[in-house]
Amino acid sequence: MLKCPKCGLEVDVSFIKHTCSKCGEPLLLEVDFEKIAERDIESLIPGELKKVTLGEGRTPLIDYRRFLLKLEFLNPTGSFKDRGAALTASRALIAGWKTVIEDSSGNAGIATAAYSARAGVKVKVYAPADAPAGKLRLIRAFGAELKTVRTRDEAHKAALNDQSGVYVGHVVEPLFIEGMKDIALELVNSKKRFEAIVAPVASGTLFLGLYKGFKELVKLGVIDEIPTLIPVEACGYTKLSKYLKSISLTCGENERSILADALRLTIVPRLHQIAEIAREVSPYTLTVGDETIGEALRELYSIGLPVEPSSAAVYAAAKYVAKEFSGNVVVPLTGSGLKYVPMPNELLDRYLF
Amino acid sequence: MLKCPKCGLEVDVSFIKHTCSKCGEPLLLEVDFEKIAERDIESLIPGELKKVTLGEGRTPLIDYRRFLLKLEFLNPTGSFKDRGAALTASRALIAGWKTVIEDSSGNAGIATAAYSARAGVKVKVYAPADAPAGKLRLIRAFGAELKTVRTRDEAHKAALNDQSGVYVGHVVEPLFIEGMKDIALELVNSKKRFEAIVAPVASGTLFLGLYKGFKELVKLGVIDEIPTLIPVEACGYTKLSKYLKSISLTCGENERSILADALRLTIVPRLHQIAEIAREVSPYTLTVGDETIGEALRELYSIGLPVEPSSAAVYAAAKYVAKEFSGNVVVPLTGSGLKYVPMPNELLDRYLF
Repeated sequence: MLKCPKCGLEVDVSFIKHTCSKCGEPLLLEVDFEKIAERDIESLIPGELKKVTLGEGRTPLIDYRRFLLKLEFLNPTGSFKDRGAALTASRALIAGWKTVIEDSSGNAGIATAAYSARAGVKVKVYAPADAPAGKLRLIRAFGAELKTVRTRDEAHKAALNDQSGVYVGHVVEPLFIEGMKDIALELVNSKKRFEAIVAPVASGTLFLGLYKGFKELVKLGVIDEIPTLIPVEACGYTKLSKYLKSISLTCGENERSILADALRLTIVPRLHQIAEIAREVSPYTLTVGDETIGEALRELYSIGLPVEPSSAAVYAAAKYVAKEFSGNVVVPLTGSGLKYVPMPNELLDRYLF
Repeated sequence: MLKCPKCGLEVDVSFIKHTCSKCGEPLLLEVDFEKIAERDIESLIPGELKKVTLGEGRTPLIDYRRFLLKLEFLNPTGSFKDRGAALTASRALIAGWKTVIEDSSGNAGIATAAYSARAGVKVKVYAPADAPAGKLRLIRAFGAELKTVRTRDEAHKAALNDQSGVYVGHVVEPLFIEGMKDIALELVNSKKRFEAIVAPVASGTLFLGLYKGFKELVKLGVIDEIPTLIPVEACGYTKLSKYLKSISLTCGENERSILADALRLTIVPRLHQIAEIAREVSPYTLTVGDETIGEALRELYSIGLPVEPSSAAVYAAAKYVAKEFSGNVVVPLTGSGLKYVPMPNELLDRYLF
């Protein structure tokens, strides 16, 4: 059952929209706690929603100094988006949709293309033309119809206006959040101790999913409280600075990040859901600039981890956070650097090659 | 303990060479079965050899028609070589080596570079200049010293002659085989039923590792017999056709595969170990050509799996095998396609983009 977090309206998971018919708020999946046995973590994502898989999830969680690195870039298409795309494709099958529409800075488009291919559903992806060439090529490689527009925000608007299929944009799709939630369940299942989690915020699905997961785990009696969640944004693309304290990790004057291509979104349908949560569980939001990202990227490669620049932004943020907290800090490394390396890129080359 | 499979000489794991001092045969790790409890699969790879990790292994095994697809391309640096590189780097730490030397068509060099970086060991990698640009760039990105030569075979010779560090080439390194063996242990641990396994053979480490794993599992009483193992080679690079029946899956006249870049090795130090095993457990060797590889690659992308061309060769072989066996066929998809996509490549484009 999908539920509006604002007015409480409930609809079936095969409902064709992602926002509430009454008040326009993006919907969320409502867990039926009466059907779940005590401490049965697995059932927080109902099995009947898992119809399509490419082996996503159960990613490694490795120790490095005081960090717990969650290697989300080892999902099938190279990013954490695969978890959400798997459940979204499942919803398309349940509802019988023939064509779906997505907008993306790259990774979510790749994931949606791959899982739609697996499900036998046609897909059209809108993306900014200046997304990394490797990402755009992958979207096409999976057989999706790729439409490039000028910016990430324009991609969102164009996808919303496309009437040739059902819009399943991860920025609003309720089941996408459930895929992200699974990361919280895995972190708790690992039995490893941690005090804080840093999470990249573009459309905020990971941030929302982690919060929803921890909140449900509290309700289920598995954990006592929701851990500290710290949003990470890119210079020039912060949405949260008007809601909570914002700390800049070396943003240049008027800097708009180029390296953090996965974080360059400003139209965020779930923004006030994110802001409300951030006020509850975040001491501040961290905004990271390209120089800091480049250095962090070099460091991650120097310990053998081929991640994408946007993930290095999150690691850089975690290093800041680790100075303020005494416990372990969880760092989701969300995207693979393998999509980048073969492409000569002056800026990237300066740090890496 | 390392042991010569030919003359029986035993040496410690910190022994600086990989071949027998008496007869020149590449060594293998000898499992001490007296120290292992009944059916204790995990102990077949001694814990004290696992000193370096980036979260390799435990890759997904997904069902697709009658295939069990083992997604080895989801290892940290995008290939199954990570399993071997992890144990090899551990041996370097145990033995106290400061600099190691590797030769590779790409993936093993990437893996060795990443795990050496993690272990804090210097590394020099020899590779053919015509390896995919993305692979060569990754080797450098992890901080390795990259030396390019004309062919894969020349890379092997040059690495052997380099006296500036300890040669740990995966083509002979005993612990590399142990990493490959782990795949056999995971397949049996999965409890899924299968009748045959196809395995790419370049230096043959996967083929040897799978066999060694299944043989030890038989000895441990976990399984009754070694499953059928079918080698897969690339047109123009077959080493096994003189030892057993060879079936060509559309090799053109004098074709030398370009797409299967990971299979282009002809100098194989462990060749007679491989041939001996193949005569025991393989009905034939399959040799695959670029047209067949390209079609198989397109098919794998069409179900959402971004693998490299050499892995598509193995899938093409599995389709042939599935017609001859009634049970499930295991297909290790060994390498990631993400290392390729951003690079325009006329031949690859014809099939994929």
